[in-house]
Amino acid sequence: MVVTAAVAGASGYAGGEILRLLLAHPEVEIGAVTAAGNAGSRLGDIAPHLSPLADRVLAPTEVEQLAGHDVVFLALPHGHSAAIAAQLPQDCVVVDCGADFRLRDEAAWTTYYDTPFAGTWPYGMPELVAHDGTKAREQLRSAHRIAVPGCYPTAVSLALAPALSAGVARAQDVVVVAASGTSGAGRSLKAHLLGSEVMGAMSPYGVGGVHRHTPEIEQNLALAAGTDASVSFTPTLAPMPRGILATATASAAEGVDATAVRAAYEQAYADEPFVHLLPQGAWPRTGDVVGSNLVHVQVTLDERVGRVVAVAAVDNLTKGTAGAAVQSMNLALGLPETTGLPLAGVAP
Amino acid sequence: MVVTAAVAGASGYAGGEILRLLLAHPEVEIGAVTAAGNAGSRLGDIAPHLSPLADRVLAPTEVEQLAGHDVVFLALPHGHSAAIAAQLPQDCVVVDCGADFRLRDEAAWTTYYDTPFAGTWPYGMPELVAHDGTKAREQLRSAHRIAVPGCYPTAVSLALAPALSAGVARAQDVVVVAASGTSGAGRSLKAHLLGSEVMGAMSPYGVGGVHRHTPEIEQNLALAAGTDASVSFTPTLAPMPRGILATATASAAEGVDATAVRAAYEQAYADEPFVHLLPQGAWPRTGDVVGSNLVHVQVTLDERVGRVVAVAAVDNLTKGTAGAAVQSMNLALGLPETTGLPLAGVAP
Amino acid sequence: MVVTAAVAGASGYAGGEILRLLLAHPEVEIGAVTAAGNAGSRLGDIAPHLSPLADRVLAPTEVEQLAGHDVVFLALPHGHSAAIAAQLPQDCVVVDCGADFRLRDEAAWTTYYDTPFAGTWPYGMPELVAHDGTKAREQLRSAHRIAVPGCYPTAVSLALAPALSAGVARAQDVVVVAASGTSGAGRSLKAHLLGSEVMGAMSPYGVGGVHRHTPEIEQNLALAAGTDASVSFTPTLAPMPRGILATATASAAEGVDATAVRAAYEQAYADEPFVHLLPQGAWPRTGDVVGSNLVHVQVTLDERVGRVVAVAAVDNLTKGTAGAAVQSMNLALGLPETTGLPLAGVAP
Amino acid sequence: MVVTAAVAGASGYAGGEILRLLLAHPEVEIGAVTAAGNAGSRLGDIAPHLSPLADRVLAPTEVEQLAGHDVVFLALPHGHSAAIAAQLPQDCVVVDCGADFRLRDEAAWTTYYDTPFAGTWPYGMPELVAHDGTKAREQLRSAHRIAVPGCYPTAVSLALAPALSAGVARAQDVVVVAASGTSGAGRSLKAHLLGSEVMGAMSPYGVGGVHRHTPEIEQNLALAAGTDASVSFTPTLAPMPRGILATATASAAEGVDATAVRAAYEQAYADEPFVHLLPQGAWPRTGDVVGSNLVHVQVTLDERVGRVVAVAAVDNLTKGTAGAAVQSMNLALGLPETTGLPLAGVAP
Repeated sequence: MVVTAAVAGASGYAGGEILRLLLAHPEVEIGAVTAAGNAGSRLGDIAPHLSPLADRVLAPTEVEQLAGHDVVFLALPHGHSAAIAAQLPQDCVVVDCGADFRLRDEAAWTTYYDTPFAGTWPYGMPELVAHDGTKAREQLRSAHRIAVPGCYPTAVSLALAPALSAGVARAQDVVVVAASGTSGAGRSLKAHLLGSEVMGAMSPYGVGGVHRHTPEIEQNLALAAGTDASVSFTPTLAPMPRGILATATASAAEGVDATAVRAAYEQAYADEPFVHLLPQGAWPRTGDVVGSNLVHVQVTLDERVGRVVAVAAVDNLTKGTAGAAVQSMNLALGLPETTGLPLAGVAP
Repeated sequence: MVVTAAVAGASGYAGGEILRLLLAHPEVEIGAVTAAGNAGSRLGDIAPHLSPLADRVLAPTEVEQLAGHDVVFLALPHGHSAAIAAQLPQDCVVVDCGADFRLRDEAAWTTYYDTPFAGTWPYGMPELVAHDGTKAREQLRSAHRIAVPGCYPTAVSLALAPALSAGVARAQDVVVVAASGTSGAGRSLKAHLLGSEVMGAMSPYGVGGVHRHTPEIEQNLALAAGTDASVSFTPTLAPMPRGILATATASAAEGVDATAVRAAYEQAYADEPFVHLLPQGAWPRTGDVVGSNLVHVQVTLDERVGRVVAVAAVDNLTKGTAGAAVQSMNLALGLPETTGLPLAGVAP
Repeated sequence: MVVTAAVAGASGYAGGEILRLLLAHPEVEIGAVTAAGNAGSRLGDIAPHLSPLADRVLAPTEVEQLAGHDVVFLALPHGHSAAIAAQLPQDCVVVDCGADFRLRDEAAWTTYYDTPFAGTWPYGMPELVAHDGTKAREQLRSAHRIAVPGCYPTAVSLALAPALSAGVARAQDVVVVAASGTSGAGRSLKAHLLGSEVMGAMSPYGVGGVHRHTPEIEQNLALAAGTDASVSFTPTLAPMPRGILATATASAAEGVDATAVRAAYEQAYADEPFVHLLPQGAWPRTGDVVGSNLVHVQVTLDERVGRVVAVAAVDNLTKGTAGAAVQSMNLALGLPETTGLPLAGVAP
Repeated sequence: MVVTAAVAGASGYAGGEILRLLLAHPEVEIGAVTAAGNAGSRLGDIAPHLSPLADRVLAPTEVEQLAGHDVVFLALPHGHSAAIAAQLPQDCVVVDCGADFRLRDEAAWTTYYDTPFAGTWPYGMPELVAHDGTKAREQLRSAHRIAVPGCYPTAVSLALAPALSAGVARAQDVVVVAASGTSGAGRSLKAHLLGSEVMGAMSPYGVGGVHRHTPEIEQNLALAAGTDASVSFTPTLAPMPRGILATATASAAEGVDATAVRAAYEQAYADEPFVHLLPQGAWPRTGDVVGSNLVHVQVTLDERVGRVVAVAAVDNLTKGTAGAAVQSMNLALGLPETTGLPLAGVAP
């Protein structure tokens, strides 16, 4: 099977990462690559790391460019996917890397986003374990519309879901602090994203529950816990181009011990090709997953204070965005889930 | 007034930073510089950034080298300060950058450290506000023995103490995640500290309440709150040489609003020359305090989840160690507190 | 065709990169992984980025571990390859990533290395163009012993060879300054390689013609020029984990113009899958080739001073070492040259 | 003596660095701080590292704001200084950090700059040694108009001038490759300066003799050599915020040996407080001079190829711009040359 795939928003970092992965995918032929403001540009001038595609010219992001492909990846600012998706055929696999179809709760959408609620698509986080033990993977097989998770929600949810699903921790009063590489902020020209400002510096942003990934994290944790979830979420910007390190703590359930906590993770992730539960005593390092579709996870119980502390590392552009998109596409197409996806990080 | 100062442990990062600050201090003449394993080395071969001292030769760290100075800075591994301090004259100002004399509770010391409890000295964090509104500064005036705080406790305590002291937040179930530059780990030759491993990567360590700064943080927060304190503390290693960003959350007290939270900080820090409470909406960035003795602080109330979120940025080597040492020395000597200390960070 | 491959020296950076590439190679099954001092360790404890191999245990680097594989990669300190290679079967493809078999001139070897001269194997830089227009590729087809080039020689030679081969520049008085990421120095525990020392700093080393890659560079440039070559080579250490940027200048031949210079490169690299001659006005950036087997090249003529200035960017671990090794193996095995090798860099 | 100083262009990196230094200068009171597009902004919102000045509001860059100060620092884009300087009193010390008054040769100016030639002011590089052994320092004493050198010319000229002045190397066919931190490019919002693009990457720019610092370098080297000079100059962008490492090679004069080369540097820099000639075998590291006004220099003779190789490290914002400006001001005001200037770098 060789399918054709178009990438809309190919001049952004997420779009570029999708192209990088598709170049190594044995079952995909890259079709149209489109952009908004950068339409008409040579791809090599914008993303010179994609050497084999350097002479491709970016087409405008219009339905007529995208239609006719087996798969369409949308890597657009939120609010732009619904109109395009509506015009694409039902049997086209549309994989949306934006936020538009992630949330189930219209009120949460409205509170955090400034565009109309577009609906909810199957959620592209195959490993997410629900309270009943099922995983999100099932809804992705043969799906034709897929909502790729946000990068922070990927790290946080995969860090905490096993503990919540197994009942060893509670979903209320979760506290998360996560550090992200600068590519998470995209290619926008803002002074605080200049190399001179970023290198050698860490800073928080979106503090106090206002970051847009907050409701998505709570939705996932609620699914895992089978209860409501409340999360204090503080994202920080770290001096590295890629990677998210999420440190998530949740109140331990009464009477839980370290063995039970560990067992919850071993059970949840025993057969997951992209989740690597580290041996006890080792902790995730973002550098080990850069460029790969892996999540490295570790957990411990701080008995003194009664909190489970779970940490996950992902590459925000790969497993955090483009890798999850391709992984979900593989499921939708009936391909082996790992097809074409890097299993080893680019380290050191 | 010109005093003479010796620095023991001058070949480490903390000792080097003390020397950097003393070189610019108008009232201090640098006397002996000593080391253990590096004794006999030219300082310029170990710390070439201290150009004016390049031809100094490191003496062995022995009492006879240190005695005879007005001030002695100790920048030694923990467990080494007590024996030396006991042999120095009572009227010599001894400023210990190690952990040995920071804790009041012998049991806490014994749990976290592997050497005998040495006692408790006045604590070199002048801005730390207690539950009764007094500050640690008072005990430092004319002190002859000073325990310089740890770098993480500096950032965390100055982030949260005003909220606790004013009663707008509670000291139980505090959750702190802090990112530190690699110099916090010292100059030890360990594989995970190699540049190849560190650059582009974040990782946690000492997770689950085992980091030695935990009891010191709890001691400070308890002082501020007037109650017991319990802290889930997760330190992380960030790809930058200097700086700590501490994100600290505490449960908000009943009925507290954002105005009360802000007021607590404005009151606590109104007259502090080294604590800069940022205007609302701005958040600390470690890069802005690098090389300076400043702490940048911001706070907000996340009403959705009922947590106060406070963030502080310091340079772990300056305000987090050597700057606090010099600031405390200034107080002990009766000098203006800011004498010789950098008030502006080296940015970008 | 599926071949088995062993990797000796798998706990070093070069060995780890070979494993990363082989994990994605469709025709290779990874066999023995061996180490010297790290024998007996779990690979996941040393190279956690190689997630699928985490539970592999490193065997000792002994012939009995390596024999029986179709391909053996040697990633050993120089001086160790000859003894092992001599004991491996003639029909085993031995790919040496060390320096031992790179030089043709025994005197040059003796001057720069401290071990006996081992001989000369076919040189694993397929794109290197000789004065007569032939390329090194030809000697690699069906070869059973291959000497993988050094990382600096890769960047410098591919930057300048077309100009020398075409006669538009001269091989005498070449001046090269190259910046390398820290992984080029390997995983050795040295103070100047600590992250705290490396980040935010650049420094030269091996200045004045003493770096061991100097004779290898001169050998390649002499091959391209058909004359003797003399090179002033200054390597510098840059604050990044991977990548080499080589800036190489050579005296322009009499009467040469910019068009002739450009033409030399277009001709030499027209059909090379791993050499990307950038469009005029664009210059290589190491970040664009990280993790890939690509070389980005650009050249210009500075008519004011009569020098051709050529710049190449490579990933020192990929095209600079492990990628060239796999590329050469592909040629030796009769596989398409690009099989299993990344064509796109991991950027940003 | 306390003088008042105004800073025009205070919202840029150079202007910010001037303010950082002046905050620690015991003889200067900071007066007006002005900007163009950022006029009206709070300084704390633009340069939060200047904590003591956070509440200052930037005035527009107009003569009426600047007049009335003893000293005026201009940190403006080139082409803007002449009109302002002409309206300032003759007894006001005007220190121009722009390029406008650096070049003596109108033709060179016209070739490289796009504005009218403004003239030539005394050149603020006190340590620059001429062919006759005099230094630029002499012209700065009591000067009222000073042209601060460019950052690259500072590093290159101080690296090579002693060799040229002493006649041990020749000024023709000099080859320089220099790496600069990103702050050298200023705060302009350009995609290639984003942190995501810069971190982990090196790239050249202005290749082939087109960089504007080229004629300034040649002017300085010609002064030192007493002959014409020609320089192949390639600047590169390095993944660090501050620092320049210049590697400069020049053809050795006939019959010169290493002792003569070393002697030239020892003589030239014996009494220079800001130039640190490293002991033989040690090489400059930009990290050691960050934030300081120091230049670290080393030199060797590569006898094989007949080139002198000299390397200098400076902080582009401090000794490369603002530090040289304050140093020159000190000379102009008759203050000790080192007054208020940092002699130690902020390392690690």
